[in-house]
Amino acid sequence: MTPKHPPNQEHIDDNMIKVEVNLDDISGEWLGFVMDRLFEAGANDVFYTPIYMKKNRPGVLLQLLCSNQALPEMKEILLQETTTLGIRYYPLTVHRMERKFIQVDTAWGPVTVKQGISNGEVFQSSPEYADCKAIAEEHGIPLKQVYQSVWKQL
Amino acid sequence: MTPKHPPNQEHIDDNMIKVEVNLDDISGEWLGFVMDRLFEAGANDVFYTPIYMKKNRPGVLLQLLCSNQALPEMKEILLQETTTLGIRYYPLTVHRMERKFIQVDTAWGPVTVKQGISNGEVFQSSPEYADCKAIAEEHGIPLKQVYQSVWKQL
Amino acid sequence: MTPKHPPNQEHIDDNMIKVEVNLDDISGEWLGFVMDRLFEAGANDVFYTPIYMKKNRPGVLLQLLCSNQALPEMKEILLQETTTLGIRYYPLTVHRMERKFIQVDTAWGPVTVKQGISNGEVFQSSPEYADCKAIAEEHGIPLKQVYQSVWKQL
Amino acid sequence: MTPKHPPNQEHIDDNMIKVEVNLDDISGEWLGFVMDRLFEAGANDVFYTPIYMKKNRPGVLLQLLCSNQALPEMKEILLQETTTLGIRYYPLTVHRMERKFIQVDTAWGPVTVKQGISNGEVFQSSPEYADCKAIAEEHGIPLKQVYQSVWKQL
Amino acid sequence: MTPKHPPNQEHIDDNMIKVEVNLDDISGEWLGFVMDRLFEAGANDVFYTPIYMKKNRPGVLLQLLCSNQALPEMKEILLQETTTLGIRYYPLTVHRMERKFIQVDTAWGPVTVKQGISNGEVFQSSPEYADCKAIAEEHGIPLKQVYQSVWKQL
Amino acid sequence: MTPKHPPNQEHIDDNMIKVEVNLDDISGEWLGFVMDRLFEAGANDVFYTPIYMKKNRPGVLLQLLCSNQALPEMKEILLQETTTLGIRYYPLTVHRMERKFIQVDTAWGPVTVKQGISNGEVFQSSPEYADCKAIAEEHGIPLKQVYQSVWKQL
Repeated sequence: MTPKHPPNQEHIDDNMIKVEVNLDDISGEWLGFVMDRLFEAGANDVFYTPIYMKKNRPGVLLQLLCSNQALPEMKEILLQETTTLGIRYYPLTVHRMERKFIQVDTAWGPVTVKQGISNGEVFQSSPEYADCKAIAEEHGIPLKQVYQSVWKQL
Repeated sequence: MTPKHPPNQEHIDDNMIKVEVNLDDISGEWLGFVMDRLFEAGANDVFYTPIYMKKNRPGVLLQLLCSNQALPEMKEILLQETTTLGIRYYPLTVHRMERKFIQVDTAWGPVTVKQGISNGEVFQSSPEYADCKAIAEEHGIPLKQVYQSVWKQL
Repeated sequence: MTPKHPPNQEHIDDNMIKVEVNLDDISGEWLGFVMDRLFEAGANDVFYTPIYMKKNRPGVLLQLLCSNQALPEMKEILLQETTTLGIRYYPLTVHRMERKFIQVDTAWGPVTVKQGISNGEVFQSSPEYADCKAIAEEHGIPLKQVYQSVWKQL
Repeated sequence: MTPKHPPNQEHIDDNMIKVEVNLDDISGEWLGFVMDRLFEAGANDVFYTPIYMKKNRPGVLLQLLCSNQALPEMKEILLQETTTLGIRYYPLTVHRMERKFIQVDTAWGPVTVKQGISNGEVFQSSPEYADCKAIAEEHGIPLKQVYQSVWKQL
Repeated sequence: MTPKHPPNQEHIDDNMIKVEVNLDDISGEWLGFVMDRLFEAGANDVFYTPIYMKKNRPGVLLQLLCSNQALPEMKEILLQETTTLGIRYYPLTVHRMERKFIQVDTAWGPVTVKQGISNGEVFQSSPEYADCKAIAEEHGIPLKQVYQSVWKQL
Repeated sequence: MTPKHPPNQEHIDDNMIKVEVNLDDISGEWLGFVMDRLFEAGANDVFYTPIYMKKNRPGVLLQLLCSNQALPEMKEILLQETTTLGIRYYPLTVHRMERKFIQVDTAWGPVTVKQGISNGEVFQSSPEYADCKAIAEEHGIPLKQVYQSVWKQL
């Protein structure tokens, strides 16, 4: 088990922004696309919530997290790819844990495991989805089985 | 307190259909409109559920209840007003309670109360929303207060 | 195509407030009513999100956007019309695009189209729902067809 | 590892009913209560879905699964404890896997593990939540850690 | 009707924090547990919202409200009991109404009623769920009936 | 504009099954994966709904549509890839419209448009998402703009 990525240290990030947009005049197809574009442009996270809007409209609340520096580009994409004419946002703080990546060997090959560390103690170990998925597809075995195999080694 | 509507007897209705349509390429604005049209055309109920569809699309599941006889007209409206090319449905049974309507006097005038009756026993009394709303708006008082006033009289 | 409304200029509004209330002891009927009241009193937006609360309670998160000046009146309505005993809020910024309204002629009459403009460029054109709905109802044609007719003209 | 419960054999159950009720005039508090009552009375499952109903009402769709024999009692509870005047239902088939319960020893004591078996093969092993929770609370350790300890033993 | 608890005065609390965590790699079982733990540790409120995350993942947004002082302990529990490696938060203001508790007598015994008071005026009276539930269970009567009995006395 | 695919005729399909599974002990990561697997194996549709389950658990209702013939394979995948020990299902009818595919030329190349036809009349024309997305990505233009260009040609 050797580290694959350099460790990311625990820190408090005061430079983050939450951006929100309410959408009731756009289709789900476009929303699937805009999520991809926002991630590609560097959004830290993007997610949708179903909301109930006026006039019996099932709408969607788009929320995204980004750094202050990335805000202008995020706005640009939201204007281009959605139907909104108003974008709201507010600052927030993110406490990020130290992340370390180790490798675990399974019968089908190595799997990266992301560890969360606080005060030098590992409190969290998560097999990386992409690795497990690749094994499941290549070997034709259930994803569940790949995860379980990794958990047994931890 | 005198009945305003003729009572509807308790019965089992085996002639009902649930219709379902998945929608991921339509906006919330149109969905607000189609709900109105379906009710006007005689749907017994229409409601939306948020669903997660492929390719990260937040979609909407439209469900409606109607009689077998009304099915063709409901299909017609769904084709005209939504973007679906496939409409699915299945039969279901509805057990409807006896409904009786009484009037309760409040300081602001009478309010209809819908009663649910089973085996001759009143198990449910609900102030009619439309009456309470009209009083709240006319007299500039909270809707909550109108309901509470009716409940005290029951 | 001539403008119907004076244009609203693009600006950053730092005077906005998001208000939130969690509700698990109120019925959907009342929530439909309070949304109307909040809009009438000048809320910029009001919407509901389904939430999971303690003790298996399906609750509702009411969110509303308003200016700082409108906050006292919004609080007043929330106390009168909902069951909450605590109202929370925080400031946020809204970046509003320039809005221009043009008219497009269809076979059934004119439809207002709202345009979003940034740096002098039109990046968004949306037919106004109210106009399209009025035509659909008056002429007995699908709403979808009205929108499509407008889009072809743009 | 010895069995704690007699095994339940794999079978197709054609005697099941799905019951549905739409609710827009009841509070979340009551819905938490009725879920408990329905489970106590023998419902196989009970769950809620947020739905969008007419007049901007955030409503709740109650769904429950029960045997044909249990239907009358479920209806009775729904009439007593909710505000519905109409209960709809339809038959469905349930394919149940064979269930076997084994015990796994952890540092804090034994935990029951529910196994799913099909054609004699174990395809699923789930630590029982109640056992893991009891250990977590008694020993003041994270629930996550208890599960992980069980997974390692499987 | 005599007060059971000392009254809580109306006040504006500027010392509150909203904490948010997005979760897509944790099961609902664990989320039920962590809600309990957070409440026990003094969270003012904890609730979940369904969210749509990347790669077609139905996720959950955990939101909790706590005082600034409680933030470190809340973070500690979130790290121990969930799978998150990042916790975000922002300050908010809570306007709390004066709360008074009175007792109302019913045929089955006393029920506490929580009153909301603003400027000396009672604008809200809610029967306490725990009391009503205890009566419903002890006497085998519908919860609905207990509430209605209290409402009539108010 | 020439047809790209052979037309699919309007018909009523009585050979369809809706399959449902409730899940409260599985993570969103796995659910993203199982959706892909079910589609690859021939499911006509797969979608998730957020549900509220016992013990404060935010769960997920998986629904899938498939033909009677595909049911065994769908069950197999659900057992392998999810944590369920019980799979429920019921028959339903699907009314499918006639589908015709035409090509529309845009400045960036051709786009397939799916048409819905009933009684020989085109009531629906939808640009294919995959084509529009490919153009948007290749030419670096907003997806919205590609759709609008297609709509103008229709």
